[in-house]
Amino acid sequence: MIFSPAITRLIEALRRLPGIGPKTAQRLAFFVLSMRKEDVEEFAHALLDAKKRVRQCSRCFNLTEEEVCSICRDPRRESTLLCVVQEARDIYVIEKTGQYRGLYFVLHGALSPLEGIGPEELKIPRLLQRLQEGEIKEVIMATNPNVEGDATAFYIAESARPLGVKVMRIGFGLPVGGDLEYADQLTMSRALEARREMF
Amino acid sequence: MIFSPAITRLIEALRRLPGIGPKTAQRLAFFVLSMRKEDVEEFAHALLDAKKRVRQCSRCFNLTEEEVCSICRDPRRESTLLCVVQEARDIYVIEKTGQYRGLYFVLHGALSPLEGIGPEELKIPRLLQRLQEGEIKEVIMATNPNVEGDATAFYIAESARPLGVKVMRIGFGLPVGGDLEYADQLTMSRALEARREMF
Repeated sequence: MIFSPAITRLIEALRRLPGIGPKTAQRLAFFVLSMRKEDVEEFAHALLDAKKRVRQCSRCFNLTEEEVCSICRDPRRESTLLCVVQEARDIYVIEKTGQYRGLYFVLHGALSPLEGIGPEELKIPRLLQRLQEGEIKEVIMATNPNVEGDATAFYIAESARPLGVKVMRIGFGLPVGGDLEYADQLTMSRALEARREMF
Repeated sequence: MIFSPAITRLIEALRRLPGIGPKTAQRLAFFVLSMRKEDVEEFAHALLDAKKRVRQCSRCFNLTEEEVCSICRDPRRESTLLCVVQEARDIYVIEKTGQYRGLYFVLHGALSPLEGIGPEELKIPRLLQRLQEGEIKEVIMATNPNVEGDATAFYIAESARPLGVKVMRIGFGLPVGGDLEYADQLTMSRALEARREMF
């Protein structure tokens, strides 16, 4: 059986979302068809509206609906401390800890020579420009704990060194609540390196 | 950190989909924001268009964009055989086998006294009317293999009995490719009941 054209089109649109395979797309499509008309309209408008309104903060490249995002505009944030992340969504993960009171900078990716992503493809030149302005005293590199994230952190640390900015890397080790038995070799070896005195 | 209003609205719209929790909704929202404008527009239009065009077939209540669905209109289908399913998507599962050449009838749910779903809330009166017309000689009840699906199958079988229509239930047993070790007690007991002579 072939689905009707409008259903097929909907299934295909849903399949483009990450982590949505053909079966899930089908299930979601049938769910959408069972939704009230007003709810489908609300869904469609939420998509269009978000895409239309949301843009990058001109200072930190976080997602915002204004020229400058709410974090950059907040006078209570420590303006000498900058946390560098790969994606805007990473900001949310850090904010949830409630422990960080500095500013952010979103690179929108990580260096990946294999995929042709160099510093110019990311916001790295804008970051270095920001560091040259002199207000930032400390940078925390919170790029992902993988090859690309590490390479990006090292590249930025090297570039920032002549500017006299202190560049830190977030800590690596065992995830809290995890079980030692299930730690992979690399995490375990990083946890050993990151050992600290207890008293 | 609170997301901007348009992002929050998008996350909430995505969360209403089945199987999409808060984290997935967030991930999907950020993905949507990273999509090209034309692709988001295509997605939104696919939603609106499907909801606008797709309706229920006036004969079998399958989803269709026309008055009567393509299966009901197909003259090569056996018009004396009717397979009754709970949802339109179940038709797809049966059609994929390539084994069934009769017609379908979609109940749009199953009987559930606890949820206040009686025969009138489903297409059961329309089904019985269809059976009264006399063309259907055999009905295959392909409702779900659970309490509600079984109850619905029995209710329809009872109601159809005086009409002289043969009512069958789909077979139950071990799923093909499965492992006996993982079969639950009920499936195993149904599989034993459904045993057949091998030669």
